[in-house]
Amino acid sequence: MTIEIVQEGLTAVEKKLESVVSSQVQLLEDAGRHIITSGGKRVRPRLAFLAYLAAGGQDVASVVSMAAAVEMVHTATLVHDDINDHSATRRGKVTVHAKWGRTFALLTGDYLFTKVYEMMAPYGADLNVIMAKATTHLVEGETLQAEAAKSGDIGRETYKQIISLKTASLFEASARMGAILGGANNDVVTALAAYAYNLGLAFQIVDDILDIIGDPEALGKPIGTDLTQNRGVMAVQNGGSTTQLKEVTAVAAADPIQEMLSRFRESGAVEIARLQAIEVAERARTALETVPPSPYRDEMENLIDLVLDRQN
Amino acid sequence: MTIEIVQEGLTAVEKKLESVVSSQVQLLEDAGRHIITSGGKRVRPRLAFLAYLAAGGQDVASVVSMAAAVEMVHTATLVHDDINDHSATRRGKVTVHAKWGRTFALLTGDYLFTKVYEMMAPYGADLNVIMAKATTHLVEGETLQAEAAKSGDIGRETYKQIISLKTASLFEASARMGAILGGANNDVVTALAAYAYNLGLAFQIVDDILDIIGDPEALGKPIGTDLTQNRGVMAVQNGGSTTQLKEVTAVAAADPIQEMLSRFRESGAVEIARLQAIEVAERARTALETVPPSPYRDEMENLIDLVLDRQN
Repeated sequence: MTIEIVQEGLTAVEKKLESVVSSQVQLLEDAGRHIITSGGKRVRPRLAFLAYLAAGGQDVASVVSMAAAVEMVHTATLVHDDINDHSATRRGKVTVHAKWGRTFALLTGDYLFTKVYEMMAPYGADLNVIMAKATTHLVEGETLQAEAAKSGDIGRETYKQIISLKTASLFEASARMGAILGGANNDVVTALAAYAYNLGLAFQIVDDILDIIGDPEALGKPIGTDLTQNRGVMAVQNGGSTTQLKEVTAVAAADPIQEMLSRFRESGAVEIARLQAIEVAERARTALETVPPSPYRDEMENLIDLVLDRQN
Repeated sequence: MTIEIVQEGLTAVEKKLESVVSSQVQLLEDAGRHIITSGGKRVRPRLAFLAYLAAGGQDVASVVSMAAAVEMVHTATLVHDDINDHSATRRGKVTVHAKWGRTFALLTGDYLFTKVYEMMAPYGADLNVIMAKATTHLVEGETLQAEAAKSGDIGRETYKQIISLKTASLFEASARMGAILGGANNDVVTALAAYAYNLGLAFQIVDDILDIIGDPEALGKPIGTDLTQNRGVMAVQNGGSTTQLKEVTAVAAADPIQEMLSRFRESGAVEIARLQAIEVAERARTALETVPPSPYRDEMENLIDLVLDRQN
């Protein structure tokens, strides 16, 4: 029952995403549809629906455009990320960048960004400010990450700031907007936002860990790619001791990716990073205590475990 | 008097643009401020203010955030254009792309896009839809242009579609939003929108002509660069005969830019393109007849001549 109404919402989001990229310019429609139909977990729209329903909202259809907009922000940044990371595959499919080239990938990302605000237009100033700020944070996080990758200077605090900005912010915004639309009081809005924020932190830490120990087939992309961008390094640096990491990094500078990966796996730092994921996940769980019990709250609790246990 | 109130608005727009790019990420703030303080004619915000005032609007301050948002859309696309065109200078200053590199230029453009919607949030659904659509059109126009440059297949109709989407749409949106905020009736809104749309067409044709016959020092960038992207070609192809152009293009494939430029100048096609600019400018002038007389309408009429006569 729970799953059914959320599933209906998510199906409507897919339809919305596919229809909104229609364009008089065939390339933008093709490239947009390519990335949209490449799968993706749709965690952010799911959060929007669950927060809305947990807040007592009754009309899931009214949330669809916002939930689609949130997924579109994420999708647009993926297209631009793949340019900057020179990624050839994403979710098991060729990237827009690899298929259409850099210029058109840049324009496709821009195009998807413009659709975000078309979909958000009906929701009024308060929600648009929340969305605009989360999108700003996302770009700020990506920028800090690119700076850190370039300089190689990635402290623990910087890693936390990056994952907070680039991932947790949009998770938080999804739930916050859902909760507001659902008519929650301030305490419940804050609790749902805190839940989603911490879930986002856990999601990103696990994502970075999977780049080191994940199954490339399950992930639909090669592992170690974030590592070459110093991102996997950040995840475990966050967990490992300085001495261990200096060793690994010294090796990393000279050895191929496979060697780097196995050194990281042996360093014990991955396990420490996992403990940190569990810690922020627990904060998400605690935040849910302020939310009135419902099947939707249960589903949100399940989502915490899914995020921690995910293999892709 | 006229100029004073518009000038006050434009000064407020500068302040808004400079303050809105403040960021916890220094690079984004620096790069954002770099492009914003690079000059620029501010034609779009000027149109927003003039349309507002011509429509009878009394509170210029209420238009500042929208006018700044329109200029920001334009600015964000400039940053991304310079990546795709490999441009080293813009408005006499080094480009964000040349100074900070491709990755950070891409992120700076994205960052400026997110600020557009932060500034538009207070204006409600109708204006946000107008803005979102104009921004979509802009990206569609840039994409068509990149496709045309790549294929070398640039017909007269394609050129018109490109300049309509990439330039005239945002001009139109600026005036339309200004007119709506100023409380104009439907006829006047439509007239002001038509004025701005045709002014935008004229502006872009003149821009493309200047890339062929302009003074590099006045322009603050080398001429012939759009030509190498097949853009100058489009402007005059629009005016020239097919035989002439086949000749020029054949030469163009083999000869350096200076040779291409002089051939174009001699082909007579530039003069024909200029006549077309005058033709759309006349349409802009005709549209103004539906607008009640005022010093602001006079100023809009002056703007037509400024656009036709500009040297940079």
